[in-house]
Amino acid sequence: MTFAEKLHSLVSSRGPGLCVGLDPDPVRMPADFNRDLPGIAAFLQKVILVTAPFAAAYKVNTAFFEALGSPGWRLLEEISFHLPEDCLRIADAKRGDIGNTAQKYAEAFFKQMPFDALTVNPYLGGDSLQPFLNDPTKGAYVLALTTNPGSKDLQYFGDDTNKLFFHVLSQIPHWAPSGNLGAVVGATHPEELLAIRRQFPSIPLLLPGVGAQGGDTETIRAMPYGAHHAPVLVNISRGILYPQGGANFPDNIVQACHSYQHELGII
Amino acid sequence: MTFAEKLHSLVSSRGPGLCVGLDPDPVRMPADFNRDLPGIAAFLQKVILVTAPFAAAYKVNTAFFEALGSPGWRLLEEISFHLPEDCLRIADAKRGDIGNTAQKYAEAFFKQMPFDALTVNPYLGGDSLQPFLNDPTKGAYVLALTTNPGSKDLQYFGDDTNKLFFHVLSQIPHWAPSGNLGAVVGATHPEELLAIRRQFPSIPLLLPGVGAQGGDTETIRAMPYGAHHAPVLVNISRGILYPQGGANFPDNIVQACHSYQHELGII
Repeated sequence: MTFAEKLHSLVSSRGPGLCVGLDPDPVRMPADFNRDLPGIAAFLQKVILVTAPFAAAYKVNTAFFEALGSPGWRLLEEISFHLPEDCLRIADAKRGDIGNTAQKYAEAFFKQMPFDALTVNPYLGGDSLQPFLNDPTKGAYVLALTTNPGSKDLQYFGDDTNKLFFHVLSQIPHWAPSGNLGAVVGATHPEELLAIRRQFPSIPLLLPGVGAQGGDTETIRAMPYGAHHAPVLVNISRGILYPQGGANFPDNIVQACHSYQHELGII
Repeated sequence: MTFAEKLHSLVSSRGPGLCVGLDPDPVRMPADFNRDLPGIAAFLQKVILVTAPFAAAYKVNTAFFEALGSPGWRLLEEISFHLPEDCLRIADAKRGDIGNTAQKYAEAFFKQMPFDALTVNPYLGGDSLQPFLNDPTKGAYVLALTTNPGSKDLQYFGDDTNKLFFHVLSQIPHWAPSGNLGAVVGATHPEELLAIRRQFPSIPLLLPGVGAQGGDTETIRAMPYGAHHAPVLVNISRGILYPQGGANFPDNIVQACHSYQHELGII
């Protein structure tokens, strides 16, 4: 099954799909778990178990594992193999480098680990993305418009008719003619998000920023969906991992999933 | 000692300094070493030993370690502690993410490992770089102009008077008023390199692309140096690690260092 086929099979054409973001922060975990590697592993395994009925995708944030040193990277590997195969498994690594180096990153995430997709950075251009796109069963999401205030520094560079984030989006069909390159667009930019969806209906979208970062769920519900539109994944990390201050675990997570499903119009 | 002070102490004001790039590729190592983790470790330790008299800096390419799985990340840690403390130790990781995630990457490279600097990607803007700059003893090199053909896709975006790579360079003094943010400029763009050096004399430069990628050494010699110019590091990876097809190791590496010192006017 190609990346595009897998994505279509997981997300209803009538609305977005839920992506559960795994950003394991020891200090925010429920008190039930030790703040050490085995404790983090147990927490993440339990989160995966209770969220699996709701999740079309999982997005694992590599930084939170790298911060734990080499045992953290071993845990990243362990968790990557623990993610349900019938979900889209995304490594949120934001890698980007010249060809021979990008090839090594592709090996790390697609060969050493079983991820289906990687988030990637467009700054080095189209050739730097090819190692992540050559295998049609794998894919990537390239950063277009990010959730942070600094997104204005480079991403809005250019004139009013052609800003950099728009230029990135317009290149995606050229960089990946077979449709295995999506875009990351922060839900904290509702106007741009709606405009992007209308202008680029065939680009798969991954939308971070809902939950802790205050992204706009109304716009996500109002976006066009349908058979001629590529699948949309809405990522929620902290809002699902640590709701209600971690109390009432794991029911708090199930409730958060229910509540986001409703709020986002996930079908 | 601050990052800026350390850099100044290591590179003569009369010319560039040599940065040895460690991109361990098992298939290219000399036949003396086993193509396994202990073999790679022994190769890199020997390379560090014989290049230390020539090196102002080392640049470790994280992708080549990640491609080896979690034992590779353990080796990255091991090598990071093996780099001479009196050299600038750069992790070539090209990280870039929103604040709370960038903070985790800073922990990985500056707390779990003893790197002095990290290469970073500017696409997410100034706030995404701050976690790498808050500690004045640490620093970063932000991508401006890369060596690959795809560098034209985004980095030259904009009009003739203000291209994106130029915009990135012009922001560096605002992003890092204390001078611990340098720029990566590929030596494969000689005209731009010379123009950048003239226009931004106070920005530390890290120049990849010499050696295997065919970067221009004449321009590097011709660039202005002096007390009012920030230090320049010229990185060479494959050209030092694998000269003469790996034969005559480790003398081949010593000869390559001598030859690049001469060719680059390193004093």
